[in-house]
Amino acid sequence: MTLVPTDNLSLDALKFDAQGLLPAIVQDAQTRAVLTLAYMNRTSLARTLETGETWFWSRSRQELWHKGATSGHTQRVIEIRVDCDADALVVLVEPKGPACHTGADTCFYRRFA
Amino acid sequence: MTLVPTDNLSLDALKFDAQGLLPAIVQDAQTRAVLTLAYMNRTSLARTLETGETWFWSRSRQELWHKGATSGHTQRVIEIRVDCDADALVVLVEPKGPACHTGADTCFYRRFA
Repeated sequence: MTLVPTDNLSLDALKFDAQGLLPAIVQDAQTRAVLTLAYMNRTSLARTLETGETWFWSRSRQELWHKGATSGHTQRVIEIRVDCDADALVVLVEPKGPACHTGADTCFYRRFA
Repeated sequence: MTLVPTDNLSLDALKFDAQGLLPAIVQDAQTRAVLTLAYMNRTSLARTLETGETWFWSRSRQELWHKGATSGHTQRVIEIRVDCDADALVVLVEPKGPACHTGADTCFYRRFA
């Protein structure tokens, strides 16, 4: 599956930060639960578009990270949205398992207030 | 309205980044649409908890920003969730108007792919 940029937006229109990253809010396309906040660089976004599954840049490990590569809990991308400043993404996905490394469906499983 | 931290989490448990900021994903509590990705420092989060409305740190203007202070489009906070790493928030709100400065309901009004 290859996702094609629409609305006349290309990769060049996106404003990656000084580290070459964009925050990507991963949201369940069906339940609309926010699953994870992760980061994409140009390569991981391109890989996401090519494969139709989420790829991120791991800031702690400083490496490309195919979500689910080890756990099997991949995320199929349904749609990608970009914000008014073109510096943040919402990635709507169909998750094949829990999003969180703790086994929770979402990384946001704790209530703060 | 004052929001009280729950789940034994305090402000001290949160991992603000080197700039003293946490990304805050603002989500409509009813429609579950992601409205905005903004940033909070300790002061803006404390102000949010005290007032029950969203306060952010504007990275471009380098100042505290009470969402809706000029537009009237405030956001009443229903709940705040924190992720597994304690370095990102989801703020569930009841918006009193559009979230985006363009007048769109959400900043993520464009489809990228």
